Amino acid sequence: MSAELNHTPDWVKNAVFYQIFPDRFAWSASVEKPGNFEPWESAPTPDGFKGGDLIGIQEKLDYLEDLGVNAIYFNPIFQATSNHRYNTHDYFQVDPLLGGNQAFTQLLTEAHKRNIRVVLDGVFNHVGRGFYQFNHILEVGPKSPYIDWFHIHRFPLNAYSTSANYDCWWDYPPMPQFNHANPQVRRFIFNVARYWLDQGADGWRLDVPFEIKDDEFWREFREVVKTANPEAYIVGEIPSEAQHWLAGDMFDGVMNYQLTHACVSFFGGSRIDAELAKGMMGLPTPEAMDADKFAQRTQELLTIYPNEFAQAQLNLLDSHDMPRFLSLVREDIQRLYLAYLFTLTYPGAPCIYYGDEIGMTGGRDPDCRKAFPWDKSEWNHQLHDKIRELVLLRHAIPALRTGTYQPLLANGNLLVYMRQDEHDSVIVAINLEGSLQTLDIELKELIPDGTVLQDQLGSTQVTIQSGKISSLTLPSMSAVILA
Amino acid sequence: MSAELNHTPDWVKNAVFYQIFPDRFAWSASVEKPGNFEPWESAPTPDGFKGGDLIGIQEKLDYLEDLGVNAIYFNPIFQATSNHRYNTHDYFQVDPLLGGNQAFTQLLTEAHKRNIRVVLDGVFNHVGRGFYQFNHILEVGPKSPYIDWFHIHRFPLNAYSTSANYDCWWDYPPMPQFNHANPQVRRFIFNVARYWLDQGADGWRLDVPFEIKDDEFWREFREVVKTANPEAYIVGEIPSEAQHWLAGDMFDGVMNYQLTHACVSFFGGSRIDAELAKGMMGLPTPEAMDADKFAQRTQELLTIYPNEFAQAQLNLLDSHDMPRFLSLVREDIQRLYLAYLFTLTYPGAPCIYYGDEIGMTGGRDPDCRKAFPWDKSEWNHQLHDKIRELVLLRHAIPALRTGTYQPLLANGNLLVYMRQDEHDSVIVAINLEGSLQTLDIELKELIPDGTVLQDQLGSTQVTIQSGKISSLTLPSMSAVILA
Repeated sequence: MSAELNHTPDWVKNAVFYQIFPDRFAWSASVEKPGNFEPWESAPTPDGFKGGDLIGIQEKLDYLEDLGVNAIYFNPIFQATSNHRYNTHDYFQVDPLLGGNQAFTQLLTEAHKRNIRVVLDGVFNHVGRGFYQFNHILEVGPKSPYIDWFHIHRFPLNAYSTSANYDCWWDYPPMPQFNHANPQVRRFIFNVARYWLDQGADGWRLDVPFEIKDDEFWREFREVVKTANPEAYIVGEIPSEAQHWLAGDMFDGVMNYQLTHACVSFFGGSRIDAELAKGMMGLPTPEAMDADKFAQRTQELLTIYPNEFAQAQLNLLDSHDMPRFLSLVREDIQRLYLAYLFTLTYPGAPCIYYGDEIGMTGGRDPDCRKAFPWDKSEWNHQLHDKIRELVLLRHAIPALRTGTYQPLLANGNLLVYMRQDEHDSVIVAINLEGSLQTLDIELKELIPDGTVLQDQLGSTQVTIQSGKISSLTLPSMSAVILA
Repeated sequence: MSAELNHTPDWVKNAVFYQIFPDRFAWSASVEKPGNFEPWESAPTPDGFKGGDLIGIQEKLDYLEDLGVNAIYFNPIFQATSNHRYNTHDYFQVDPLLGGNQAFTQLLTEAHKRNIRVVLDGVFNHVGRGFYQFNHILEVGPKSPYIDWFHIHRFPLNAYSTSANYDCWWDYPPMPQFNHANPQVRRFIFNVARYWLDQGADGWRLDVPFEIKDDEFWREFREVVKTANPEAYIVGEIPSEAQHWLAGDMFDGVMNYQLTHACVSFFGGSRIDAELAKGMMGLPTPEAMDADKFAQRTQELLTIYPNEFAQAQLNLLDSHDMPRFLSLVREDIQRLYLAYLFTLTYPGAPCIYYGDEIGMTGGRDPDCRKAFPWDKSEWNHQLHDKIRELVLLRHAIPALRTGTYQPLLANGNLLVYMRQDEHDSVIVAINLEGSLQTLDIELKELIPDGTVLQDQLGSTQVTIQSGKISSLTLPSMSAVILA
C-alpha cells in the first residue's frame, strides 16, 4: 500500500477543472425549495441565498462538456446553514436547498456519463453550531456524552456571542473546531470521506487542512481515501508552499495559490489593482513581475514537489476566496485570457472558476460569488470561445498536459516556453508588451532543424532553422502556441 | 377512504403495551458510544445520560415477550440533543447514541418476529434549536430561505436566552414551534410520518398534539398515516377528555390520563401522596374516590367516545411525565397490583410503564425515569409474576379485551364488574377495604343459573344461583377474576 500512496491520480494530470460555488451557478425549477431567495441577478450579499442547486448544474453539464471541462470542484454541498456551506450541519446529507442526496446522485451519474469527475469540498477542521455533536454539548452542557468531540474551555458555552469559550476556526464562534485527537472524531471524519467516495465522488478538496496540525491524521486520511478509491484526488487548500504535505504521505496536490500569485503578478503587471489584491489568501500583495522572475518561479514550483505531485496541482487564477482575476487586472480581458492560456499550457490541472470564461468580474467575497448569468447577452462570447479553444487544445496535445516545462526566453514582458514529451514539442510564446515584438527563440537543439510548427490559435507558421525560431512576430498582448 | 378512517386498528384493542424511555431501559455493549455517561444505577439527573440503546432493548425482547407484552411505545428515538429527545435534531435519523437507524431496523425486525408492534413518539409541534431549518434561521438571519418554517418575531433571534423572540413550546426557547400553516412544513412532517411507517413502525404516539390548533392538519395526518398503513395506530397525548380528536377524523385513541386520574383516585384512596400527585399532567390533584364514582367514571370514559375509539385508548397508570403510580400510593405494592389488574381487565390497551412490573419507584421527572435494574435481586419478583399472570390472562380471554364492561357492584371500596362477549363472561371483583369482605353480586340475568365460575388467579369457585353470586369472600386488598 505505502508504495501506492506515492502515486497521484493520472486523470488529474489530464484534467481541466471547473470550480462551482453551488448556490450561484444554476437553478432548476425541478428542485423544490422554500422562498426568500435574492434575485439571481442582484449583487450577492454575505448572507443571502440565490438558490442554485445540483439539478441546475446537471442541466448545464452540456455547457461544461462543450467547454471541455472534465472535472468539477464543488464548494461544499453538504447540509449547512450558510450560502457557502463551510459550517456543516450534516456531512451525510447533501443540502436540501441543493436538491438533497438524490440530486447529487443524479448529477454524479450524468457527470460520469460525460467523463466529468467530481471533487467535493471536505470541511474537516470545523463544523457549524448546529452540527449534531456540537449542538449536543451546547444544549446538554457538561453532561453531554459528546463532550470530547470538541475543546470546551468553560460552561456554559458562549456559542452565540462574540467570543467563544471553545476552540473554533480563527476564534470565529460559528465554526467550532473538532477535537481531532479523539479517535471517535477521526473515525467519524474518515467515515464521511469513505462514504462519499463510495457514493462515487472522485476526490476531496480539503478546507484549511493546515489547521489540523496532526500529520498522522492526514496520513490516515490518505490511507482511507486511497483504499476506498486508489484514483481519488486529495487536494489541500494550502496557500503557502506545501512541501510538507506533498511528500507522498498526505495530499496529491494543493490549490496552487503560489502559482496564482505569480500569475497575477506577471499577467497583471502594471494593471494590478493593488488595493483589491491586498491580503489575497494571506499572501504578500502581488506586484508587477517580469518574465524572468515568472519563468524562474514557475519552474521552481515544479521542482519543490516531486514531479508526480507537481503534475497534480490544482492551478487556479482565482476562487471563491479572492477577487476574480479579471477584477484584479482592472478588467483587462486580454490579460485574463493570456493567464488562462498560461495555466492551460502548464503542468498541473488548470481550474476555471465558474464564469471566468464569460468575463464575470467580482471583488472580494461576496462579490466574487455572483450568480452565473445565463442570459447570453451578458457574456463575453469571444473570451468564452477562446478559452474553450485552449481547453480543447490542451486535451488534443498530451505534451501540454504532461510534457516537460522549459522556459526558453524570459525577458521583460516576453515569455517563451516549451512543453515537450516523446511525441510532441510545443512552444508557447506570450507577449505582454504594449507593442508588437519580434523574437528570436533559441531552441537549444530541442527540436530538429527543418521542423515546421504551426500556431494552433492562428495562421502563423515557423520553420526551425539553425536550432532556432527567427523573427517571430507577436502583436501586443498576444500569444502563439506553436506545435 | 373516509369510511375506513373511522376504523381503529384491531391489534390495539388486543394489545398490551410496554412504554420504554430509551435512555433508561437497557444498554448493549455492541453499540459504540462516546463517554461521559452517568452510572446506570445512580439517580437520574435532568441532563445526564445513562446510555440505554435500541440493541440493548432488542436483547431484552425475550424478557418482554415472556411478560406477555405485544406492543412497545417508545419515547422519542430520533436524533436529538437531550436524554428525553423531545427536541428533535433530525427526524430521519435514529439517535446515534441509541445505535442509529441500523439498530432500529434490527430491533424492529426482531420485535416483529415476536409479534411485538412498535409505536414511535411523534414530536411534530416543536423541534430542537439545532434542527436544520431552525438552525438555518438562527445562523443566517432574515435572509434564510427557511424563514417561514417558524414564527420569528424579531431578529436577531434570542435562541439562547431566557425569553425567546419566536414561537416555542410553552415559551421554552429550546423548543421552537413549527409554523404548521406552511405547506412545506406540513409536507415535511407528513413525509416523516410516512417514512417511518414505511420502515415498519406500527404507529405514532403524538406529543402535545393539542398545541397544533389546526384540525385540518390532523385530518391530513390521519389520511397520510392510514394510507401508508391502514393498521397504523395514532394515539394522541391529550390529558383532557378528547372527544374532539376521537370523532373518527383525527386520532384512534389518546393516552388515557383521564383513566389514570380515576385509577390513582380509586386505587390510591387514602394512600395518595397528594403533594407528589399535585399538578399531575395538569389535571386536578387526585383525591380518594369511592367505587361508585369510579364505576361511573370508568363507564363514562367508554361512552364519551365511539366504541371503536374507546377500545383503542392507551390505558396507562403512569408515564415518563408523572410520578410512578407506586410512588403516588406511597409504595403500596398491592394497590399498584390491583390498579394493573383493573387496566388489564378493562377495555382499551393497557400500557405498562417500564419497570412498574418489578416495583420501580420514582417521583416527578427525572426521578420517574430511573434506569431499569437488570440485577434481579432488586426486583419485586412476586409483583412481576402476578402482573405477568394478568397479562397472559388478558391474552387468553378475549372478553377481557373486547367484551362489554359493566359494573355490577360499586360500594365504598368494593368494585365488581363484568366483561362479556358472545363466548365468555368474566366477573372481576376487587376489595380495597382494610378487611375481608363477603359479597352478594346481582347478575341481572347476564349469566345463566348453574354456571360455575373459577377464579383465574386462585382457587375460589362460585356457582350462579338465583341470578347471583352469593357470599363471595374477598380478603382485604385482593381481587378475583371469575371466568
